[in-house]
Amino acid sequence: MNHVLIEAKSKAYKVFINTGLRSKIGEMMDSIMESHVSSVLVITDSSVAPLYLDDVVGSFHEKLPIYTTVIKSGEASKSFEVYEQVMTKALESGLDRKSVIVALGGGVVGDLAGFVASTYMRGIRFVQVPTTLLAHDSSVGGKVAINHPLGKNMVGSFHQPEAVFYDTEALYSLPEKEWRSGFAEVIKHGFIRNHTFLNWLQEEVTSFEELPVELVNQMLEKSLAVKANIVAEDELESGVRAYLNFGHTLAHAIESESGYGVVTHGEAVAIGMIFALKLSEQIFEVDLDVKRYEEWFKQLGYNTKISNQLQVSRLVTKMQNDKKAEAGTIRMVLLRKIEEAILIEVPPNTIEQLLVEQMEVEING
Amino acid sequence: MNHVLIEAKSKAYKVFINTGLRSKIGEMMDSIMESHVSSVLVITDSSVAPLYLDDVVGSFHEKLPIYTTVIKSGEASKSFEVYEQVMTKALESGLDRKSVIVALGGGVVGDLAGFVASTYMRGIRFVQVPTTLLAHDSSVGGKVAINHPLGKNMVGSFHQPEAVFYDTEALYSLPEKEWRSGFAEVIKHGFIRNHTFLNWLQEEVTSFEELPVELVNQMLEKSLAVKANIVAEDELESGVRAYLNFGHTLAHAIESESGYGVVTHGEAVAIGMIFALKLSEQIFEVDLDVKRYEEWFKQLGYNTKISNQLQVSRLVTKMQNDKKAEAGTIRMVLLRKIEEAILIEVPPNTIEQLLVEQMEVEING
Ligand SMILES: NC(=O)c1ccc[n+]([C@@H]2O[C@H](COP(=O)([O-])OP(=O)(O)OC[C@H]3O[C@@H](n4cnc5c(N)ncnc54)[C@H](O)[C@@H]3O)[C@@H](O)[C@H]2O)c1
Ligand SMILES: NC(=O)c1ccc[n+]([C@@H]2O[C@H](COP(=O)([O-])OP(=O)(O)OC[C@H]3O[C@@H](n4cnc5c(N)ncnc54)[C@H](O)[C@@H]3O)[C@@H](O)[C@H]2O)c1
Repeated sequence: MNHVLIEAKSKAYKVFINTGLRSKIGEMMDSIMESHVSSVLVITDSSVAPLYLDDVVGSFHEKLPIYTTVIKSGEASKSFEVYEQVMTKALESGLDRKSVIVALGGGVVGDLAGFVASTYMRGIRFVQVPTTLLAHDSSVGGKVAINHPLGKNMVGSFHQPEAVFYDTEALYSLPEKEWRSGFAEVIKHGFIRNHTFLNWLQEEVTSFEELPVELVNQMLEKSLAVKANIVAEDELESGVRAYLNFGHTLAHAIESESGYGVVTHGEAVAIGMIFALKLSEQIFEVDLDVKRYEEWFKQLGYNTKISNQLQVSRLVTKMQNDKKAEAGTIRMVLLRKIEEAILIEVPPNTIEQLLVEQMEVEING
Repeated sequence: MNHVLIEAKSKAYKVFINTGLRSKIGEMMDSIMESHVSSVLVITDSSVAPLYLDDVVGSFHEKLPIYTTVIKSGEASKSFEVYEQVMTKALESGLDRKSVIVALGGGVVGDLAGFVASTYMRGIRFVQVPTTLLAHDSSVGGKVAINHPLGKNMVGSFHQPEAVFYDTEALYSLPEKEWRSGFAEVIKHGFIRNHTFLNWLQEEVTSFEELPVELVNQMLEKSLAVKANIVAEDELESGVRAYLNFGHTLAHAIESESGYGVVTHGEAVAIGMIFALKLSEQIFEVDLDVKRYEEWFKQLGYNTKISNQLQVSRLVTKMQNDKKAEAGTIRMVLLRKIEEAILIEVPPNTIEQLLVEQMEVEING
């Protein structure tokens, strides 16, 4: 079966990509797990459960005890409260160290369920069954986390899944907004590591309506190959893995200032990438053809401007408090050219100026 | 300086043992940390803070930002609630990925602070400054955790400290009960790996009054050497590390059934060790001289009988639900002879019978 191999230092595992995969997970688990599985807890959310939970549970053919728990759909579920609730469910179900957690859903379910797996009895195995396009990114690489009221993903760990089962069929129930959100991370992988792929995307994807499933499979393989590469080089984010943060420093600030859920992650990343491209042009005195990319983004329905509801000074402060930053400084991933990322410290002044330029102009002021 | 080297697979670090060490931590940190430290958060508890917090903070000579947080003394602080509170404190203090957490206290502080360190921004560095005898065990080996209402240490991870600073002077403010609790783990190390050490302990320690500090230093080094050995062989508890659980299967059940805090951990482990010795004699048909050990335990003030307030059937159920067990079975560490531990599955019946024999007899029934 089509797959991408992730060779993290702590563990190697496969990302299987195929249509209809959700109904084969139970059978495939046998060959994937190196040792006995005593029971399974499937964690999913309230939007995904009615669509795909039965298929996943059914795929185990009652060969071992399966428990399920459904969290509320949405970012708010990545909380201490829900974390504790899921732990309670795991204990009540009698999960032991040989049990496996199945994360069925988007990045929210994956991050939460992964963090539960990484800390339940000091760590048990889990598999990812991503159901959003964005989750092609979040389900791979082992970063798991919940949010703290004072910051997103502030509490978490590194815990690699045993396997990722990507059922591309499941993507077709996603609203367009979620395609757009996930596609930003696909583009990002092109920008930081694969110019050819980026060009191909620009040719092939000009709308999210009726994308053929073969194209989606191919796109995911290419995009995941970039991530696989980077994770293999630097599992624990002490070096090149930071490049995956391209577009994210501003995106995190925008998400946090807007209130989570107002803009999707990918929408914010799109704005952040345009910003990072402009900043790169300015700092390295190169021409990256930003205009053309911005047009493409607009064609795909992205807003590339920063909402005028937001305050530049507050965005700058948030960027200084980013998890990747040492207190006070702003470190960003920029491009010296397409495919050539670099992590550098940028003076807050420079950032502030360029942010002002990217603000949405109020027309009926 | 006297130290024991811990060579875990994921990291090697030293346990420094000396009197007055708490006032030197700040200075020693410089030479221990491989990279820049941006700030420090000292986590301690309400009994330890008035005694030693100033010394530790003072040892940094205001060379970098130091924050402190004091949790309530006692097992109840290993909770989700306190975990979240300490995370809040860490975020409010602006800790970043270069910050270091200092765990100043007994096993409760060490386990909680270590779990915070392991999950704050997906893991930052921490050092252990144990102040109880029991913490000679808990501060080494990287097992960190909080409790869930449904089970002790159910939520946690493996996260090794950068160093352990053991100030033996600080032990002298401990109540006798806490010496007794910690000493059970010292004895355990003798039982599972070092008969000579066990004999030496039996000679040298017959009361906890006025133990000379040199003897305590020596005892800690020997005891830690056993733990170091085992952790080096098996950091993640997939094999021999389970031997450290000698006496603990029953102890956990007793603690949980009594309500935490009623018996200390070590008092419960003492009962558990006598039980495991008797069971070993029975199963392997050997003579381990249990009577003599039981006498020594009594001389030291341990109660070796199971309280008749407890129900045997409930203890058995709890032993079946132990974190180390696969659901339903009872696996215990026994001794084929002193110094020769083995992990085996014991039929619940056999356990039940022997538990009845070890129950306290009600005299004024
Ligand atoms: N761990 C990482 O490396 C990493 C990387 C990027 C993002 N993330 C995290 O991922 C999260 C965002 O992920 P997301 O965008 O997938 O959000 P999400 O999980 O909230 O999913 C988006 C929405 O789509 C719904 N949904 C999911 N699958 C569906 C389907 N097949 N059909 C219809 N509806 C479906 C969900 O219920 C939700 O309402 C954020 O919390 C972010 O921090 C993590
Ligand atoms: N991580 C591990 O490998 C491991 C191993 C064994 C035990 N543990 C954990 O350790 C905990 C028990 O540790 P503990 O026995 O140190 O308990 P503790 O931390 O509660 O300390 C016992 C009591 O002594 C007080 N105290 C601490 N130092 C003092 C001092 N120098 N002078 C006066 N009073 C002092 C404390 O405030 C507390 O009231 C349990 O939660 C147990 O699960 C962990």
